[in-house]
Amino acid sequence: MTFAWLKGHGTENDFLLLPDHDGTVHGHLDEAFVADLCDRRRGIGADGVIRVIRSSAMGIDSDAEWFMDYRNADGSASEMCGNGIRVFALHLAHDGLVDADHPIPIGTRDGIKTVEIDFEKGSGEGADIISVDLGAPEIRETSKVGANGHAWEAQHIATGNPHAVVFVDSLDDAGTLIDEPEYDQDTYPDGVNIEFVERQGAKHVAMRVHERGSGETRSCGTGACAVGIATALADQADRPVTYQVDVPGGTVHVTWTEDNRMILAGPAVIVARGEMEWIV
Amino acid sequence: MTFAWLKGHGTENDFLLLPDHDGTVHGHLDEAFVADLCDRRRGIGADGVIRVIRSSAMGIDSDAEWFMDYRNADGSASEMCGNGIRVFALHLAHDGLVDADHPIPIGTRDGIKTVEIDFEKGSGEGADIISVDLGAPEIRETSKVGANGHAWEAQHIATGNPHAVVFVDSLDDAGTLIDEPEYDQDTYPDGVNIEFVERQGAKHVAMRVHERGSGETRSCGTGACAVGIATALADQADRPVTYQVDVPGGTVHVTWTEDNRMILAGPAVIVARGEMEWIV
Repeated sequence: MTFAWLKGHGTENDFLLLPDHDGTVHGHLDEAFVADLCDRRRGIGADGVIRVIRSSAMGIDSDAEWFMDYRNADGSASEMCGNGIRVFALHLAHDGLVDADHPIPIGTRDGIKTVEIDFEKGSGEGADIISVDLGAPEIRETSKVGANGHAWEAQHIATGNPHAVVFVDSLDDAGTLIDEPEYDQDTYPDGVNIEFVERQGAKHVAMRVHERGSGETRSCGTGACAVGIATALADQADRPVTYQVDVPGGTVHVTWTEDNRMILAGPAVIVARGEMEWIV
Repeated sequence: MTFAWLKGHGTENDFLLLPDHDGTVHGHLDEAFVADLCDRRRGIGADGVIRVIRSSAMGIDSDAEWFMDYRNADGSASEMCGNGIRVFALHLAHDGLVDADHPIPIGTRDGIKTVEIDFEKGSGEGADIISVDLGAPEIRETSKVGANGHAWEAQHIATGNPHAVVFVDSLDDAGTLIDEPEYDQDTYPDGVNIEFVERQGAKHVAMRVHERGSGETRSCGTGACAVGIATALADQADRPVTYQVDVPGGTVHVTWTEDNRMILAGPAVIVARGEMEWIV
C-alpha cells in the first residue's frame, strides 16, 4: 500500500502523521500496522502515530473539524498526547487546513482541546511555539514511590494520565533510580508516570520522566504539566503562574491559569514528509 | 530538498538507503545531514545511511558497478557493514540493477565484496537469505575484558573491526555486564566490540554484543563472524564449518571455509520506500 506521511516531534517526542482526511486511506487503521510502523528497527520508528482525519469521517458530530486519531507505539488507541497535539496542530496550520490566526479546536478521545500557534516566536529550528489548553488538573494526595532501595514522598496529580512528582536534589542519579520504580498499587491501579524534578531557579525546574509501559522518555507533555502544578503547589504560588520546565528533549513552559487550566507551550517541528510504499 | 529513500534491516540492524546512482542528488553527502536523518527522534532514524551509487560516480575504476557508500549514524564514513551490504544487495536485486542469478560484486571502502542471494530460501518475512564473503579473519592473542567487577579471558579476532569474544554460562546477566565494559587499551587502541557468547548446542551459539560508540545493539555482522571463528577455534573444528549464531535481532549463519574465508548469511528485508521532502 502507498500513503502520505509526515514525521515531526515536540521536544523529541516523535510522531508519524498519516493524512487520511476522509478515512478512505487507512480504513479502521490496523493496530498491528501501527505497531510495525512505530518499530524503530523493523519499521520506520516513532513514539506514536497520529491519523489526520475529519471528525465527520470518525462519525463524530463536533465543533472541531479535525480529529487527532492518536495511537501509541504498540498500536493501541489513546485519549490524548500533549506533545502530539502540538505537532498535529502545526501540520494543520502549515497545510492551510485551519485558520491559524485564531485558536484551533481539535477533537480528541478526551474531548475538544484548543491550540494556539505563535509563529517564529523563538529562533532557529523549533521557533514556532504551540500552546495547548489541557484543562484542569486533578490534585490528589501524596504517595510513596521508590527505586533501588530509595523512597520518596510524591505528589499525585492527574493531568489526563496519572503522575507522581518527586523533588530530588540532583537529576544526575535519576538515570539509575528511574530504571524500575516502585509505587503503591492501590493509589495507582493503572500504573503511574513518575517525574523526578530538580529546581533550577525561580520559576524554573528540570525533570526526567519514567513513563508507564515505555521507561524513560525524552519528554512527556502531561508530565511536564504535572511538574508545573506540583511546583506551584510547593511554592504556594499565586495564579496565574508560569514555570519553565526543562525535559531531556528540550524546554516547555507550563502555565496554571487563574481559572485552573493548564497551558502547555513549547516548540514543535515537522522534519520530513512524502509518500511511502509499505512493502512488508 | 526531495529525494528517494528506502528503509530496510538485517536482523534488526537498520538502514536508510539513498538512491543517488550518478551522485547528482546528494553531492558529497553532508555529514550533518546524515546524522540528522539517523536521529531516531529528531529525524527518521537508522543505524546508518547507505548511498546507492555507481563506482564510476565515486571516481573509482572498479569491476563492481555499484558502490556501498556507507555512513555511520553520526555521519562519519565507514569501511564496511556486514548487515548493511546484505540489505544493499537485496535492494539492487529487487530493482533489477544487478543480475541476482550470479554472485554480485559490490564496491566498499574495504574493497570489493561478493554477495549471493537465495530468494525464498526460508519462509515468511525475511525469507530471502543473503550471504556475503567477508574474507579472512585475523586471529590474534587472547586478552582480558571486564565489567562491573567481573573479568574474563577474551579471544581477540579482527573481522574488519576489532572484536573480543567471551564465552559465558548465561547471557541473562550480560544485560548489566554489558553496560560499561573495560578492556586493555594497549591491545585495542581503537576500542573494541565485545561479544558475550552462550552455547546452545552443537554448532549453535547465542550472543549479545556491545559495539564501541553505540552500546548494546540488536545485531553486528562482523561480530557474529568473530563469534563463529572463536567458537570453531574453541571446538578445534575441521573446516569448512558453519555455526548458527542467534543475535537479539534474529539469526545468522557463519561459515568458515576451507580456504580461510568468512561467509555471513542471513535474512534482509526492505520495509518501505518512497520520496521524502526534508523540511528542517
